[in-house]
Amino acid sequence: MYEKDKAALTPPLGWNSWDCYGPAVTEEQLLGNARYMAEHLKPHGYEYVVCDIQWFEPLAGKFHWNYNAFTPLVMDAHGRLQPDPVRFPSSANGAGFAPIAEQIHAMGLKFGIHILRGVPRQAVYSDCKVLGTDIPCHDIAHPNSICAWNTDMYGVDATKPGAAEYYESLFRLYAEWGVDFVKVDDICNIKATPLEPYSAEKEIELIRRAIDRCGRPMVFSLSPGPAIIEKAWHMAKHANMWRITDDFWDDWSLLREMFWRCEMWQAHVAPGQFPDCDMLPIGLIRVAADGKGQYTRFTHDEQITMMTLWGVFRSPLIIGGELRANDDFTLRLLTNDALLHLNQHGGVPFQLFRDENKAAWLNFADGVPYAALFNLSDDTAEVSADLTEFVGSEPCEAEELWTNARQTVSGKVSASLPPHGAAIFRLI
Amino acid sequence: MYEKDKAALTPPLGWNSWDCYGPAVTEEQLLGNARYMAEHLKPHGYEYVVCDIQWFEPLAGKFHWNYNAFTPLVMDAHGRLQPDPVRFPSSANGAGFAPIAEQIHAMGLKFGIHILRGVPRQAVYSDCKVLGTDIPCHDIAHPNSICAWNTDMYGVDATKPGAAEYYESLFRLYAEWGVDFVKVDDICNIKATPLEPYSAEKEIELIRRAIDRCGRPMVFSLSPGPAIIEKAWHMAKHANMWRITDDFWDDWSLLREMFWRCEMWQAHVAPGQFPDCDMLPIGLIRVAADGKGQYTRFTHDEQITMMTLWGVFRSPLIIGGELRANDDFTLRLLTNDALLHLNQHGGVPFQLFRDENKAAWLNFADGVPYAALFNLSDDTAEVSADLTEFVGSEPCEAEELWTNARQTVSGKVSASLPPHGAAIFRLI
Amino acid sequence: MYEKDKAALTPPLGWNSWDCYGPAVTEEQLLGNARYMAEHLKPHGYEYVVCDIQWFEPLAGKFHWNYNAFTPLVMDAHGRLQPDPVRFPSSANGAGFAPIAEQIHAMGLKFGIHILRGVPRQAVYSDCKVLGTDIPCHDIAHPNSICAWNTDMYGVDATKPGAAEYYESLFRLYAEWGVDFVKVDDICNIKATPLEPYSAEKEIELIRRAIDRCGRPMVFSLSPGPAIIEKAWHMAKHANMWRITDDFWDDWSLLREMFWRCEMWQAHVAPGQFPDCDMLPIGLIRVAADGKGQYTRFTHDEQITMMTLWGVFRSPLIIGGELRANDDFTLRLLTNDALLHLNQHGGVPFQLFRDENKAAWLNFADGVPYAALFNLSDDTAEVSADLTEFVGSEPCEAEELWTNARQTVSGKVSASLPPHGAAIFRLI
Amino acid sequence: MYEKDKAALTPPLGWNSWDCYGPAVTEEQLLGNARYMAEHLKPHGYEYVVCDIQWFEPLAGKFHWNYNAFTPLVMDAHGRLQPDPVRFPSSANGAGFAPIAEQIHAMGLKFGIHILRGVPRQAVYSDCKVLGTDIPCHDIAHPNSICAWNTDMYGVDATKPGAAEYYESLFRLYAEWGVDFVKVDDICNIKATPLEPYSAEKEIELIRRAIDRCGRPMVFSLSPGPAIIEKAWHMAKHANMWRITDDFWDDWSLLREMFWRCEMWQAHVAPGQFPDCDMLPIGLIRVAADGKGQYTRFTHDEQITMMTLWGVFRSPLIIGGELRANDDFTLRLLTNDALLHLNQHGGVPFQLFRDENKAAWLNFADGVPYAALFNLSDDTAEVSADLTEFVGSEPCEAEELWTNARQTVSGKVSASLPPHGAAIFRLI
Repeated sequence: MYEKDKAALTPPLGWNSWDCYGPAVTEEQLLGNARYMAEHLKPHGYEYVVCDIQWFEPLAGKFHWNYNAFTPLVMDAHGRLQPDPVRFPSSANGAGFAPIAEQIHAMGLKFGIHILRGVPRQAVYSDCKVLGTDIPCHDIAHPNSICAWNTDMYGVDATKPGAAEYYESLFRLYAEWGVDFVKVDDICNIKATPLEPYSAEKEIELIRRAIDRCGRPMVFSLSPGPAIIEKAWHMAKHANMWRITDDFWDDWSLLREMFWRCEMWQAHVAPGQFPDCDMLPIGLIRVAADGKGQYTRFTHDEQITMMTLWGVFRSPLIIGGELRANDDFTLRLLTNDALLHLNQHGGVPFQLFRDENKAAWLNFADGVPYAALFNLSDDTAEVSADLTEFVGSEPCEAEELWTNARQTVSGKVSASLPPHGAAIFRLI
Repeated sequence: MYEKDKAALTPPLGWNSWDCYGPAVTEEQLLGNARYMAEHLKPHGYEYVVCDIQWFEPLAGKFHWNYNAFTPLVMDAHGRLQPDPVRFPSSANGAGFAPIAEQIHAMGLKFGIHILRGVPRQAVYSDCKVLGTDIPCHDIAHPNSICAWNTDMYGVDATKPGAAEYYESLFRLYAEWGVDFVKVDDICNIKATPLEPYSAEKEIELIRRAIDRCGRPMVFSLSPGPAIIEKAWHMAKHANMWRITDDFWDDWSLLREMFWRCEMWQAHVAPGQFPDCDMLPIGLIRVAADGKGQYTRFTHDEQITMMTLWGVFRSPLIIGGELRANDDFTLRLLTNDALLHLNQHGGVPFQLFRDENKAAWLNFADGVPYAALFNLSDDTAEVSADLTEFVGSEPCEAEELWTNARQTVSGKVSASLPPHGAAIFRLI
Repeated sequence: MYEKDKAALTPPLGWNSWDCYGPAVTEEQLLGNARYMAEHLKPHGYEYVVCDIQWFEPLAGKFHWNYNAFTPLVMDAHGRLQPDPVRFPSSANGAGFAPIAEQIHAMGLKFGIHILRGVPRQAVYSDCKVLGTDIPCHDIAHPNSICAWNTDMYGVDATKPGAAEYYESLFRLYAEWGVDFVKVDDICNIKATPLEPYSAEKEIELIRRAIDRCGRPMVFSLSPGPAIIEKAWHMAKHANMWRITDDFWDDWSLLREMFWRCEMWQAHVAPGQFPDCDMLPIGLIRVAADGKGQYTRFTHDEQITMMTLWGVFRSPLIIGGELRANDDFTLRLLTNDALLHLNQHGGVPFQLFRDENKAAWLNFADGVPYAALFNLSDDTAEVSADLTEFVGSEPCEAEELWTNARQTVSGKVSASLPPHGAAIFRLI
Repeated sequence: MYEKDKAALTPPLGWNSWDCYGPAVTEEQLLGNARYMAEHLKPHGYEYVVCDIQWFEPLAGKFHWNYNAFTPLVMDAHGRLQPDPVRFPSSANGAGFAPIAEQIHAMGLKFGIHILRGVPRQAVYSDCKVLGTDIPCHDIAHPNSICAWNTDMYGVDATKPGAAEYYESLFRLYAEWGVDFVKVDDICNIKATPLEPYSAEKEIELIRRAIDRCGRPMVFSLSPGPAIIEKAWHMAKHANMWRITDDFWDDWSLLREMFWRCEMWQAHVAPGQFPDCDMLPIGLIRVAADGKGQYTRFTHDEQITMMTLWGVFRSPLIIGGELRANDDFTLRLLTNDALLHLNQHGGVPFQLFRDENKAAWLNFADGVPYAALFNLSDDTAEVSADLTEFVGSEPCEAEELWTNARQTVSGKVSASLPPHGAAIFRLI
């Protein structure tokens, strides 16, 4: 265990603006969701309110749900991006995110932001100097390392004087604002190639060091996935969570595939070190500039499967939908306290079995076993798991956490599950 | 933790015949090394005496240090290979390895054998039936899955009736013989390709099940490497140790590369689940039919580096050389009790850093920190590691385990190391 | 141009038993199709009658449309496979394929057979010696090179004494039989891997040499694909045709993909050297043991597209269906003399353009341009090609070869094409 | 054959500034080499004088033999780069390369320039508009396609309005200047990846179209290699030459490897379509800012091997060294008229054989065979090639083109060759 693990001893629970607002979230939306969280979700453990990508982009979301290329960014004299004061009025006059953070803190919650690794393109082409130095920002840019899907940044070349100072200047600012969580993007799915040798590892190390020195604990989250498993040790050493999947949306094939991803990453779950299955695309998502969005395409059974898997695997649980539009089902889905208890206080999860049609997982919290059963097929099916090796075969009570039904079992749990459905049993 | 983990809660310590005798080891050599172990190594914890590949091959080693193709094998009527009675006289008349196992047990040691996954080619082309069934052996052979470097076997097709029964018939026999350790080869470095989809996973599962049912605990070791890290969870679930490298020999470039392999596998060390750096090619190895061998090409410093890395990483320690030819240095290298204590009773190891020239690792045993420093360069170098994050900075005693030199340190250890050399400190 | 090119200066035209009879074709079926060819197709240039895989397997096709594993084969004392005398009665008493070849030659046609590279597994496990030598067949087997989908053979290790002699003994026998065409399988889609370095190249060279020395010209065809384009030069040097695709069947997605394959291979078409798009799965195919088969699933338009592409690209045209079941459409499709003229006497084909929805090709025969237009989309579409660069823009007559419609064009051809349809114009 | 092939019916012969002057060549050096060429090389067929990369970069070569990152470039108001008037004084006042081209033309030679695909980064970050349009240059930039080793450009997104116009504006300018040859870089070794799908193909097509419309024939050369052989057809269709290797320098291992590259590309040599082995790094190369350079590290024998391979393979012959520093050997090497005749007027080359130690190639010019023998080993060796298949076995005269020695041969040539040496015979 590392010192940095203390920032997230349990999987972070919270909300992120991407799935509902893309690059265009506003102050009103952030705070509105924060208030909902304070009222409805905080009692269950949720605490992070995270503002996703391009809060510094005045035109974000104006034309489409995507990034504008070569667009002007709001930036200070030292190449540090600033919230757009139109979208975030309280940030005017150099206040940055401090006023928003303050309000969120006042609700008893925590505040997070998204950044892309690197230094702004706009800083590279201006006369900006890294704060406290005479080093021009373009001297620290890695001239051939740019994000494949967004034009805002150049990677930082960690071998250059000023590189560490730049990242430290960023995180000192974030600490001043009161940031508690930082999701760093374009950083963990990059595989070295002969033409483009991997460099983001060094940027992960610079950011780790900058957080350690900024004077404020922050959760360090890596994105996008799929993270590279040969580098699991490196992410475990420097970050608190890392995405094991590309962007996850409300599509059964992606959810089905997550079982394979969790299988592969199961041994890597540890306090302060969480493989991340990505946000929960539930409730109202994909809200366009006209305010119209879509309700998740996942069925209720699929949503139960998702929450059960994220829960037993101990993924961070970051809600993607506009919270204020939650229906009863969605709210209940998010506030299953027994499942949340397992998610927060379980141990290393492990898969009991998986084939084309079925899967089962086991985890323990406070010595109590929780067994999850999944029906991956398109038909109703009976799924069972033999737990004798782990719990013996003495009769005991098993409570299903979604229905609260109880039964007596002897070393084995079974359920008849609807297509794409799940059940999870606590053995008492 | 799985039930099967109990067979090897700590990394197995022992000797294996391959590095010195290749495919041609004899009863006299096995027992001679066992007696040496009982006298010199058992007090330090070594216990396994493992007979490597082709004990069923009468002509092994007669012509060259390699395998004869399409060679006749000693086999029973049910397709189960038997020790060659010329090389292993006590095995005559169907006794198999039981007499040798008995003698080794009488010394207070344990006995292991090597097998190749699959059913003998010779059984496929005879009228053998799987024991207790009417199923011909050729019905369970996977007709297109053969080892790339040895012609003795066909893979077993796990989907075929008789496949499980065949493996169970093998392991019941091994249990009768008194086998305590089985090294299964040609099984863990196979990556699926479109032309040849991966199948050995299913054979691992069949063997696990056969061991569980054979009535005798056995350590289950997988070979050759490099094992595939995406499948770490599968090996951890079914086996007790698995090779993370192709055959390891006395060559600095292979030893240097092992640092990268250990880095990648560090999170996967657990009781009953050990990534395996392969045998220690030290002392007298590569003994030919004329009895002449070579002494290891590793320098003393390289051997210290190897033992230190295997020790702190908690690899199994399986000696490869003819024990009776050990010189004083080699025996001392193998019997450093403090290092062996860490190897046996440490926790999850972790690399502190690594670059082209240096590396450092940390592990704890009984709450006591052990820090290892390595000089990977070709020049003498000073290597240090800052341990403050893990042990604080209060002054304490540090004992170097190869020299027993003591010094007072404050959260940091340093050493001037010869080229390819190492040091390891216990902080008290 | 090589001497061996003379065996196939133009793309071979003929019939092959695989698509209709799989591994189970009989003498009656071979000769029946030959008689149909002599009557209906020979006037248009077709001449090869090819007996595909496992003519030496008595049980082929008895149980399923696939290969029996470890099945006994009909073989002579020198490890040379022989026709099964039950399926091929005229081959009894050691006559081999000579009587069938004689009958086919008497019809003015040519005779071909299929073989798998290598030496029979059954020869490896018997006491066979390579003809004219004291070398046991198992000495020339490559013990770890076996076909991924059939158990009949081991690869031949070209470095072994007897390897060349074995292949020469085969081809002298085939020459005695009167074989004119040999399709060698399991030989051209094998990519070297670290675990299994490529060896089939050397077998191609041995076979080339054996054909050159056998005293009879033979077309040398390589299978299966996709052949490896880095080795195009090697196949061009030693063979007459090589498969650029895995087995091709009556499925639009495979036909669509062939446009990409032809694009990639277009520069490699030369006299005696033909990239091969595989058999034409038309008419009655997949005939089971009960005599019931299926008519091709290709639509008429798709069949026209296939013939047009194979025609302009100058692929060999080897019919896959039971000829005696041809309907009028199928026979007309196969006997478009203008298209066959282009196929036989064209030059190097080249693709004019290709995108998701459309493609066009150009070739010249006797200085006359032929332009083919393809509609790859699922809707009716207008497709045009500008030919000015190649034919100038003077008005000329264009005859569409499937409809015989004529029009005057000026450097450009156009057609309204049905979904998956094609047209081909000869400019006069 | 395409219309564009007429620009280079035979392999281009000439000189390029890269090997001697890197990114820093000057007008004086260009013209000095041109004058040398006119006097010494033009009589043998050499005609192209090519100014390599970064003629628009005022600081090129000032600090190191590499590219400056984010450096200011000389550019016109439409995003078109211009020669730096300090390094190229005659280009002042908007004259561009016209005065230099005029002088080179006056010597009876041709003039070439190097460009990188794309639009200048500096144009993207200014208000430049594509000439004759209202489209800002940043609208045509592909925001995530940048060269991996130079920061000057963004790729052009071929789907954007203005993309074709931009390239056309470039080539009209080059035509006005009098450019005869354009080497386009960062364009032919890019393999599609999921994160970065291949796009340069579309830029090749845009450039082809721009050349066709510019009113002046130009040789179109693609760089760097290794070009991707699956796309051979595309390069053959649009370009006149393409690099089959990464940068080639005076290192035997690179020269040895070229035999494998030529083997793979041999079928693709055609009029107007030449696989390119890269410049000849001979004579004085790597000249630094202080005027000091190095003489090639190739031995004389290696240089003869290189010229013989490039000659028989029909690679373009572009000299890399400072011509005015040529010694007698170098000049003789470059002016072997018999070899140059083969290079210019040969057919499709083909390799007779190649193994670890030897290779042989054959080509014909005007019906006369030329056979080249190579000793790839480090020892003197006898190398022979049997040509009977191609030339019969009648006795004829064979002249070795480097020594002019003659002998009578009968279908076979042989030579005793020094290590890394070669011989080439013309059979008369």
